[in-house]
Amino acid sequence: MLKLSRALSSVVSGTRNSPSFKTYLRLKDGKIGSFFHDVPLGLDKQKRIANMVVEIPRWVNAKYEISKDFKANPIVQDTKKGKLRYLNNIYPNHGVPHNYGAFPQTWESPLESSSLVNQNILGDNDPLDVIDIGRFVSSTGTVKPVKILGSLALVDDGELDWKVVVIDTNDPFAAELNDIKDVYEKMPGVLENLKRWFEVYKIPTGKEPNSFLFDGNYKDTEFTLKVVQECHENWYKLVMGELHGDNLPSTENATLPHTKGNTVFDVEIEVSQKAEQVPPEVNDMSFIK
Amino acid sequence: MLKLSRALSSVVSGTRNSPSFKTYLRLKDGKIGSFFHDVPLGLDKQKRIANMVVEIPRWVNAKYEISKDFKANPIVQDTKKGKLRYLNNIYPNHGVPHNYGAFPQTWESPLESSSLVNQNILGDNDPLDVIDIGRFVSSTGTVKPVKILGSLALVDDGELDWKVVVIDTNDPFAAELNDIKDVYEKMPGVLENLKRWFEVYKIPTGKEPNSFLFDGNYKDTEFTLKVVQECHENWYKLVMGELHGDNLPSTENATLPHTKGNTVFDVEIEVSQKAEQVPPEVNDMSFIK
Repeated sequence: MLKLSRALSSVVSGTRNSPSFKTYLRLKDGKIGSFFHDVPLGLDKQKRIANMVVEIPRWVNAKYEISKDFKANPIVQDTKKGKLRYLNNIYPNHGVPHNYGAFPQTWESPLESSSLVNQNILGDNDPLDVIDIGRFVSSTGTVKPVKILGSLALVDDGELDWKVVVIDTNDPFAAELNDIKDVYEKMPGVLENLKRWFEVYKIPTGKEPNSFLFDGNYKDTEFTLKVVQECHENWYKLVMGELHGDNLPSTENATLPHTKGNTVFDVEIEVSQKAEQVPPEVNDMSFIK
Repeated sequence: MLKLSRALSSVVSGTRNSPSFKTYLRLKDGKIGSFFHDVPLGLDKQKRIANMVVEIPRWVNAKYEISKDFKANPIVQDTKKGKLRYLNNIYPNHGVPHNYGAFPQTWESPLESSSLVNQNILGDNDPLDVIDIGRFVSSTGTVKPVKILGSLALVDDGELDWKVVVIDTNDPFAAELNDIKDVYEKMPGVLENLKRWFEVYKIPTGKEPNSFLFDGNYKDTEFTLKVVQECHENWYKLVMGELHGDNLPSTENATLPHTKGNTVFDVEIEVSQKAEQVPPEVNDMSFIK
């Protein structure tokens, strides 16, 4: 397993607040890599640590995510019917309540049900989502080690979409938090607010509330480590070319020489100081009973 | 009573995020005025409308307020023991939950108890505080008409410190909100969150929770209009030189020719593009049971 190198960085391209804006992973050697495939997960089950890629900084509305459509999986702002997607402010939250991101080298498989849930439900075909409840606001494209605390089994549009709760290993609280129950105790309000946020956050766009498996209870650290491991194994089968199906993500990568997708990314970085205006309605608040 | 002129504007001086940074009121004739004395309150009891001065935009941490110390009452960031004061993030709130400001030409008198409360409690010697629950994020120094909806009688350090709940008259919700009960109904969660926020927001600085008169119940619009009227009358007595006491605020003003404090403000505007760094701990979150 590759170790996280501090030399991983990011580089932006295009006009801010526009569909052209992309944040690329820059590898130690200066070449472009994939946030999906080229950042080592670095899962340490003893220490309960892995590397997270931050997509949306805390308090931001823009729905940034690791793209499966663009070459090298840059982080881009999601679009819906051609329009940039912004998360609603679920009062009293401002944008996302915490840094939001994903575990690299993980994949929620849409091909088969997980053995960890007692239902016939398929994954959402994305990297595993991660919520960093620490105090630091991390910018889009940050790669950092986080401590795994627990998880929530969200069901969105009939697909399984785990939300893993973690804390930045550098957070002063990190040493005190060793399982999900510690979060209830030491950070009162967080897990309740987060669950409600995930339940209702798409209601303002006209959707039904999301539901959860396991009666909406957070799963503990031990269970969550299995979820991360399983999604890592699913990702591994994917990049090894063992899986077949429609709409499988590209496995093009810059650092996995033994895989079919190994390549050198030829990406043009368009340096721009320009920024589009963010529509004022992004500041609107949604009040949900 | 002077009517609000759209020509009122503001001008900034000094280095951002430093004690030198000030936002001044600029009058129609281009001269500097006082946010405390020279913005007309413009109270219309029939329409329940008055003019608000925005001090802290929604989601901002910097504790901006109309200064009683500086000539012409600019808006400055409050300091505590020489350090710039920032509001804590009371999870899941980010900075202030709504635009926060004051009614100009009002004053909570520290000289005598209000006839509107059944207790011997004195005012906090400041303009009346106002919370705009509308959707627009307004910048520091904005003067705008708002609709009065209700109020909360906060007690802070033994002083009465009313918080008046209003909504921007241009907000699409404004027409539907005519009393405090409408807010409970049409904007669920707002009044509960706001009351809790005021109760606990100083706990992270080591203070006790704030308390409220009237069992913590919001007062309705009719009662609140009386509070605004009384504070306006107290202000009037102050600027007319009818009151005597220690620590009374300066009544220097640019637009009230029949008052002793009438003057021409000689203020030097220091144009600066510079900004100090905001300390990273401003982003910390506070979790309160």
